[in-house]
Amino acid sequence: MRLVVVGGSDAGISAALRARELDPAVDVTVVVADAFPNYSICGIPYYVSGDVAHASRLAHRTHDELVATGMRLRLDTTATRIDVPGHRLHVREAGGAQEALDYDALVVGTGAVPVRPPIAGLERLGPEDGVHVLHTMADTFALDRSLERLAPRTALVVGAGYVGLEMAEALTARGIDVTQVEMLPEVLPTVDPELGTLVHAELDRRGVHVLTGTTVTAVAPTPDGPARLRVEGNAGGEPTAWDVDIVLVVVGVRPDTDLLVAAGAATGPRGAVAVERDMSTGLDSVWAAGDCATTLHRQLGVTYLPLGTTAHKQGRVAGENAIGGSARFAGSLGTQVVKVFGLVAARTGLRDHEAAGAGFDPLTSQSSPDDHKAYYPGASPIAIRVTGDRGSGRLLGAQLVGALGTETAKRVDIVATALFHEMSVTGISELDLSYTPPLGSPWDAVQRAAQDWERTVAS
Amino acid sequence: MRLVVVGGSDAGISAALRARELDPAVDVTVVVADAFPNYSICGIPYYVSGDVAHASRLAHRTHDELVATGMRLRLDTTATRIDVPGHRLHVREAGGAQEALDYDALVVGTGAVPVRPPIAGLERLGPEDGVHVLHTMADTFALDRSLERLAPRTALVVGAGYVGLEMAEALTARGIDVTQVEMLPEVLPTVDPELGTLVHAELDRRGVHVLTGTTVTAVAPTPDGPARLRVEGNAGGEPTAWDVDIVLVVVGVRPDTDLLVAAGAATGPRGAVAVERDMSTGLDSVWAAGDCATTLHRQLGVTYLPLGTTAHKQGRVAGENAIGGSARFAGSLGTQVVKVFGLVAARTGLRDHEAAGAGFDPLTSQSSPDDHKAYYPGASPIAIRVTGDRGSGRLLGAQLVGALGTETAKRVDIVATALFHEMSVTGISELDLSYTPPLGSPWDAVQRAAQDWERTVAS
Repeated sequence: MRLVVVGGSDAGISAALRARELDPAVDVTVVVADAFPNYSICGIPYYVSGDVAHASRLAHRTHDELVATGMRLRLDTTATRIDVPGHRLHVREAGGAQEALDYDALVVGTGAVPVRPPIAGLERLGPEDGVHVLHTMADTFALDRSLERLAPRTALVVGAGYVGLEMAEALTARGIDVTQVEMLPEVLPTVDPELGTLVHAELDRRGVHVLTGTTVTAVAPTPDGPARLRVEGNAGGEPTAWDVDIVLVVVGVRPDTDLLVAAGAATGPRGAVAVERDMSTGLDSVWAAGDCATTLHRQLGVTYLPLGTTAHKQGRVAGENAIGGSARFAGSLGTQVVKVFGLVAARTGLRDHEAAGAGFDPLTSQSSPDDHKAYYPGASPIAIRVTGDRGSGRLLGAQLVGALGTETAKRVDIVATALFHEMSVTGISELDLSYTPPLGSPWDAVQRAAQDWERTVAS
Repeated sequence: MRLVVVGGSDAGISAALRARELDPAVDVTVVVADAFPNYSICGIPYYVSGDVAHASRLAHRTHDELVATGMRLRLDTTATRIDVPGHRLHVREAGGAQEALDYDALVVGTGAVPVRPPIAGLERLGPEDGVHVLHTMADTFALDRSLERLAPRTALVVGAGYVGLEMAEALTARGIDVTQVEMLPEVLPTVDPELGTLVHAELDRRGVHVLTGTTVTAVAPTPDGPARLRVEGNAGGEPTAWDVDIVLVVVGVRPDTDLLVAAGAATGPRGAVAVERDMSTGLDSVWAAGDCATTLHRQLGVTYLPLGTTAHKQGRVAGENAIGGSARFAGSLGTQVVKVFGLVAARTGLRDHEAAGAGFDPLTSQSSPDDHKAYYPGASPIAIRVTGDRGSGRLLGAQLVGALGTETAKRVDIVATALFHEMSVTGISELDLSYTPPLGSPWDAVQRAAQDWERTVAS
């Protein structure tokens, strides 16, 4: 049994590990486009910030640890074509040498590529000009070199989603004065603006210049200007401009599907490769997983929602099935969390408009219960928005913003676990959750938020 | 509709609040034995330690807040007899005046009383001698007075359960040299000794002198001794003794059932008042809730397991049903957490021997996944023991010990929520939990622990 895996990130390595774990007789080869297998791309901002001293620390597992599991790694090797009927993967090494790898099963985890928004000049500029995107380790090293070489005093970050916020914090930690531009009316648009505004205020407190409802329209080098780059934009119809030393564009990703689409794979939402719950692609003996593939959302059905946690799960399912198993991806709830300076923002399930779009009759309530008993020092409110269906009382989702140290990340996971089981909002109060005054309340914050939803819907 | 509630602690006040919330026309009177309604007895150690500046801060709600909900409070009033056929509660005020309160429904939440172990001399000694138990606010003030009056340099704490450990920390925080004596082989006997030993080591690090496998046999004043009290004990068959300034006995509680038993109520495990899932007692129009009553454990059936969280839930159910509702207590999983200096220890569900006693074929595995990605500063292992049924793969319980700041308390709640839904151990890995490198891993620590259990059972 020869399993070939394309992609050395979360999905690919998870598939390879699972196959080796279940059947040590399987011959596993992982084709990795760069020299950084199993690197945690979610950790890149913490390398840029200086929290992670050396990039090699970002590896979930070292090269040696991966090889010790019995998998073979083909680094700096690009998969160029899948010969589906022939069960062969064509690859090209960095030096140009080409080869075809026979397989019995193929798992493709090519991931995603950064979206490049329509900014005039962006297509001509790159790291040497101080203009960066950030997705791969190569992008990371290029940014690192710019930070060394240019010693920028100022930076402009385009986008205020998860990575944009983490990078604003990272660059601030490096002593750089950061301007952050977001097209939408509030930062962190994956949560409701009522909570995004709390994150916005934290950015303000930490000295990040946040501009929402603002687009970037052009970027150009300014050899004689006050800074290396002039960035032009539009704020509510008014033209505006910024002079900065570097620009970082982090406005999301799109699935990297070229290899699979060329092989005849069908696509789904956002152009991602359509996969079944067993991660099969419809192509004979070809599975796909992670950011290149569609995701089954437990509440929305098939969607595109690239997340590292999902890539790990899908990869594990694909690896099991590629060697003859019958695993099924249980589905995502879009559970996410981000640390922004001293705040933690998290969500799981659906927001109001998403729930309405899925046919529910949603109501969202907001409350701010303390993380622990007020009498014990350090109690801090967690802003919690609970979304439920008015008619059935079914829990649909929750969003939380709390200070670091309030266990906000694992509190969203309590809700995620409840959502997994399709609980009612009322049911949350029946959960037997832990309590000690320094860390909680007799009714946990998520239960108090659920009770607030019940009162809101009754009023 | 006249609702009378006996007991001003968690269960009683929860019942009164719920009744008032559901029907503002209900006349609610709460009979409170002391002057401290709705005080958080779980907070007492933090008052003793000095973390809580004034005892009044321990109130979940102030007297005024309670009255504002429309309930009537009868403080310093003892319920002496229930006239079940006459629907009357006889009470006695502190001054001796007696009265009978007519009711349509009665909820009894008399709580528990501290167990007094068979220690020679204990029956003759009290606060004036520096010998204390700790359960009520009166006990707390008595201890407080002893700490002021005696300025003890040394203390002996009998018992190393939740409250014993919290009090060892509290007295240490007050600058007192603490010796802690536990009869069983390891501290915190509600978790497996493999985790208790971690708590033991933390106590050692913080200067508490911990003696396990040791019983206290006698206590006596020593007016001419090196300290105020001489305590005698037995360590593995060898007599031993300690000279200390104060003694604190915290070895658990037993249900306070005199009122209900005298009225004819049946009792169950540990002598607690037997209640149905609707908290009815079998006596006409009489409900009971909290530490005086039995608890439905979702895995063990009817048991006795006094916990503040359960008292709140049972009280809420009793309050709803007393005024005509049809609520059912969903059951406990014995979820508990305690902070011991810089550690957090938590459990939910069953341990090996408990599961075996309940007819399962349990296996427990132990692993120590980091709380978050190792490359982000401050990562710290959480010792996690997962118990599951070998045959069915069903999740049965988990125990966790981690450092403060590792979100250990809310991680046990993820498991508690999974247990509530009778998940398999394998199912834990399907949960869509949140991830960001500073706060988690792509597979959360509880998922990695579950995967470790799967490997253990397969090996």
